[in-house]
Amino acid sequence: MAKVITPRSEDYSQWYNDLVYQSGLADQSAVRGCMVIKPHGYALWENMRDVLDRKFKETGHVNAYFPLFVPKSLFEAEEKNAEGFAKECAIVTHYRLKADPNKKGKLMVDPEARLEEELIVRPTSEAIIWNTYRDWIHSYRDLPILINQWANVVRWEMRTRPFLRTAEFLWQEGHTAHATAQDAIEESLKMHEVYTRFAEDYMAMPVIKGAKTANERFAGAEETYTIEAMMQDGKALQAGTSHYLGQNFAKAFEVKYLTDQNKEEYVYATSWGVSTRLIGALVMTHSDDDGLILPPKLAPIQVAVVPIPKPSPEIDAVGDKIVAELRSKGIRVIYDRDERNRPGFKFAEYELKGVPVRIGIGARDLEKGVVEIARRDTKEKQSIDLNSAVMETMNLLDQIQNNLFNKAKDLRESKTKYLDDWNSFEEYMKEEGGFVYAHWDGSPETEDLIKEKTKATIRCIPMDEAFKESGKCILSGKPSTGRVLLAKAY
Amino acid sequence: MAKVITPRSEDYSQWYNDLVYQSGLADQSAVRGCMVIKPHGYALWENMRDVLDRKFKETGHVNAYFPLFVPKSLFEAEEKNAEGFAKECAIVTHYRLKADPNKKGKLMVDPEARLEEELIVRPTSEAIIWNTYRDWIHSYRDLPILINQWANVVRWEMRTRPFLRTAEFLWQEGHTAHATAQDAIEESLKMHEVYTRFAEDYMAMPVIKGAKTANERFAGAEETYTIEAMMQDGKALQAGTSHYLGQNFAKAFEVKYLTDQNKEEYVYATSWGVSTRLIGALVMTHSDDDGLILPPKLAPIQVAVVPIPKPSPEIDAVGDKIVAELRSKGIRVIYDRDERNRPGFKFAEYELKGVPVRIGIGARDLEKGVVEIARRDTKEKQSIDLNSAVMETMNLLDQIQNNLFNKAKDLRESKTKYLDDWNSFEEYMKEEGGFVYAHWDGSPETEDLIKEKTKATIRCIPMDEAFKESGKCILSGKPSTGRVLLAKAY
Repeated sequence: MAKVITPRSEDYSQWYNDLVYQSGLADQSAVRGCMVIKPHGYALWENMRDVLDRKFKETGHVNAYFPLFVPKSLFEAEEKNAEGFAKECAIVTHYRLKADPNKKGKLMVDPEARLEEELIVRPTSEAIIWNTYRDWIHSYRDLPILINQWANVVRWEMRTRPFLRTAEFLWQEGHTAHATAQDAIEESLKMHEVYTRFAEDYMAMPVIKGAKTANERFAGAEETYTIEAMMQDGKALQAGTSHYLGQNFAKAFEVKYLTDQNKEEYVYATSWGVSTRLIGALVMTHSDDDGLILPPKLAPIQVAVVPIPKPSPEIDAVGDKIVAELRSKGIRVIYDRDERNRPGFKFAEYELKGVPVRIGIGARDLEKGVVEIARRDTKEKQSIDLNSAVMETMNLLDQIQNNLFNKAKDLRESKTKYLDDWNSFEEYMKEEGGFVYAHWDGSPETEDLIKEKTKATIRCIPMDEAFKESGKCILSGKPSTGRVLLAKAY
Repeated sequence: MAKVITPRSEDYSQWYNDLVYQSGLADQSAVRGCMVIKPHGYALWENMRDVLDRKFKETGHVNAYFPLFVPKSLFEAEEKNAEGFAKECAIVTHYRLKADPNKKGKLMVDPEARLEEELIVRPTSEAIIWNTYRDWIHSYRDLPILINQWANVVRWEMRTRPFLRTAEFLWQEGHTAHATAQDAIEESLKMHEVYTRFAEDYMAMPVIKGAKTANERFAGAEETYTIEAMMQDGKALQAGTSHYLGQNFAKAFEVKYLTDQNKEEYVYATSWGVSTRLIGALVMTHSDDDGLILPPKLAPIQVAVVPIPKPSPEIDAVGDKIVAELRSKGIRVIYDRDERNRPGFKFAEYELKGVPVRIGIGARDLEKGVVEIARRDTKEKQSIDLNSAVMETMNLLDQIQNNLFNKAKDLRESKTKYLDDWNSFEEYMKEEGGFVYAHWDGSPETEDLIKEKTKATIRCIPMDEAFKESGKCILSGKPSTGRVLLAKAY
C-alpha cells in the first residue's frame, strides 16, 4: 500500500498520473481509454456540477435529456461537424448477441441482428438535438430555447489520459436557439463569462478569455470562445468553450421560424460545454508532490477533524462541538473516529486527498485550551484557542481559496512573455515553456507553420483590448492587428 | 396547438401516451425506442434523483462512475447474467467513420476500424464493476464497498413506451460488496425499504413489498426483492428492485478477500436500481383526463400564482409578497407575469402540467381581501383571506400529498381480491383486472401455466406475514404455504 508519487520536477506527466490514481480520483478500466471515476473524484465532479447547474438555471436555462445515439443520416447532416468527429466515433451496428456455437458458454454478435442504419454514440449532441428542435420551433414565440444537458459522450481518441482526454467523459452541453444572430452571440458570450467566473471564483484557476482561430474552432461553429488556463508546467489547458453556431445547424436540419413580421427565417444557435476534463485542470493547477490541493469551495471534504492520538470522551466532546458548528455553517466536515489508523497515517491521507483544513485535537493541547489547525496549501500549522477554532477555520478556508488563485496567477505571470522575435520564441518554447503574447499575421498557413516548428499553438485571440495593437507577425513579419496567446497545450 | 387527451375510459394506453407527450414530459426521437426527456420531465427526474441520492448518502453510500461500455469477454463472464441480457444488447463494433466514396458528402463505417473485441453498451453494470472491484478488494478491511452510480443504460427492447420501457433509460444502480451473506442480504433489504419509503412518502404511490419467484429474478441474482404498485387500470408496475447476488459475480470475476482469520473467501454482493420508469408509474398512478397530477413533494412547480386578468401594480405587490413568503419556506413557486396568455389558458396549462396548487389574484377579490386557491387533485377552489393564503397553501400541499396516497391506496384496495377458485380468477383477469392474492404450489410450471392462461404473472411473494398460510394452489390444487400476488403487469 506504499503510495509513491513521482515528484513534479522529475516527471510532470508521471506525477499527474500517480496523483490521480493514488489520491482516489480515478482508476483505469478494462475498456480502452475509459476510466473509472472513483468516489473522491465523483464527489468533486458533483460539487462542480452543482455550482454550474445553479449558474445555468440562474441564467434562465433548463435541463433536458436527449438520446445517447445519433442515426448516421442525422450525424452527417451538418457536414463540417460530421467531418470533425467522423474519425473518432464509436459505432453501434448490431442489437443482439447469441450463443457462440463453437465456444461453449461464450457469446457472439448475432449477424442477423444488424441495424438497418448504424447508430453513432454521441461525441456531441448538436445533430440529435437540432433534429428535435425542428419540431419544437415554429414561431418567434417559441424562442429562445435555452436547454442544457448533463450527459456522457464518447470520442475515440487515440492517446488518452485520465480526465484530460478519455474515450468516454462526462460533461454538460448547452444547446440554445435564438431569433437573431445578436441574441445568439450574446448568449455564447454570456456562457463564456459563466465559465470564466466558475474557473476563477470556484476552481481558483485564472483563465485567459479569447476566441479561437478559424483552424481551432469547433466543427460547425462560426466562432468559438474559449477559456485557457496555465498548468504548473507552463502548458495551456482549454478549460471550456462556448460556440456561436450561426445558422449552420438550422440549415442542416431545416429549423425555421415565423418572425413577428410573418417572415420565415432560419434559427440561430449556440452550444457550450465543460467536462470532467476540469478535474484534470484542477489537479494540475494547484497540487504538489505530496498530493492534491483542492480549493475549499469545491473540496468534497473541506475540514477533517482528527482526535490525537485517538477518540476519548473529552476529545470527542470537543470534536463533536466543532463539527456541529462548522456543519451549521454549511461546511463539509468529518470527524475521523477510525481507531485502526494512527494520526500520522490519517494526516498523510488527508494531505493526499487535498482536504484544505485539518484540525487536530490532542489531550495535552486541550489542557491548554487549544487545538492545532493545519492548512493544506502552505502546510502551516498553528495552535488556536478552542473558542476561536471555528471562526479561524472559516477564515482559513477563505484565505486558502484566495491564496490558491493568487499563487496560480503569480505562476502564470512568471511564465508569461511578450515576444517579438522568432528566435527567442522558438527557444522559450523549446526550453522552459509558458504563455507567449506575440503578433500573428492572421493566416492559417503561418499558424500551421508555428505549430510545426515549435509545437506551440495559438490558444486564443484574447478579448482584452490591451492586446489589440498593430505590429509585425513573429514568424512571417507581415502586418498584424494584435497579439495572440501562444503555448503548448494539453 | 389544440391539445386533446384521450379519456382513460376510452383507451387507457392512448391516454397515457397523449398525456406524456402533451404535458411536456417527453417527446419521441429519431432513434428507435429512445425518447427525449423534455424539461418538465427532466425537472421531475431531478427532484426524484435528489431525494433518492440523499437517502443513499444517509445510508452510507457514495457515488462513482464506471464506463458505458463492457468488453464482450467481461460481459459473458457471469453466464446467467449474460444470457439474460444477450438478446437486447446494443453492440459497438467499429470506432471510425470515413467519407463514402460512392455518395458525396455522406459517411460510411470504416471497415478497417473494426474493434478487436466488441463492446456492449451497458444494459446493467455488474460485469464492468465487479471486474474493477477485484482490484479494490483484498482484505476484510476493504469491505463493505457501498457504491451507487447514476447513469444511462441501454436495453434493446422490441416494444417500447415512453418512460415505461425505452431502449435507453436513466437510472441509478447500487453495487455493494460485503464480507458475509448476512451483511449482503441486510443491505439488499435496507435498500428495498429505502425504495418503499420513497415510493410511498414522496411519490404517494402505495406499494406491495415482496420477493420475486425464481422465474422472475434478475439474471444472476439469488434473490430479487421488488416493490409492486397498482396503476389506475388495475395492472401492476414493478417500481424498483433490490437483488441479493450471493457470490455469483465474485466467482465469475474472482473477487476474493482475506478474512480477519486470514482465510481467503469470495465476496458477497448486492445490486439495486430504480429508473426513469418511475416517472411513468407516477403519471399512471395519479393523473386524470385533464392532465398530470403530481405529488407536491416531487412537482417541479408546486404553486403557480396567476394575476387575474393580468399583472397590475396592486396585484403584483400581493403576488410578489406571497411568492417571497412561500419561497422562504422552500416552496417551488412561480408568479406568471406573461401577458400574452389569458388566465383561462394558463389554468389549463398548469392543470395539464400537474401543478398541485394554483393561486388566483384578482382585482375584485383583492378589494374583498381574498385570493382564490385551487387544488389540482380534487379541483376544489376556495376564497381565502389574504393573510392566511400562505399558511393555507402550505396546508393544502400536505393535504394533497396525503390525499393522493390515500386515493391510490383506496383504488388498490377496491381492485384487490383474495381468490381461491380458478374460474373466478380467470374471469377477474379477463374482465376488470386487478391484484389477486391466491395460493400457488411454488412450481415454475404452474407459474408458466397461469401466465399462459390469463396473462397474469406472479408479481411477488409478499413479505407481509399475513400471507403466509397454508392452502391449495389456485390452479393445480397442490399444497401451498402462502398466498402470492398475481396481476397483469406493465
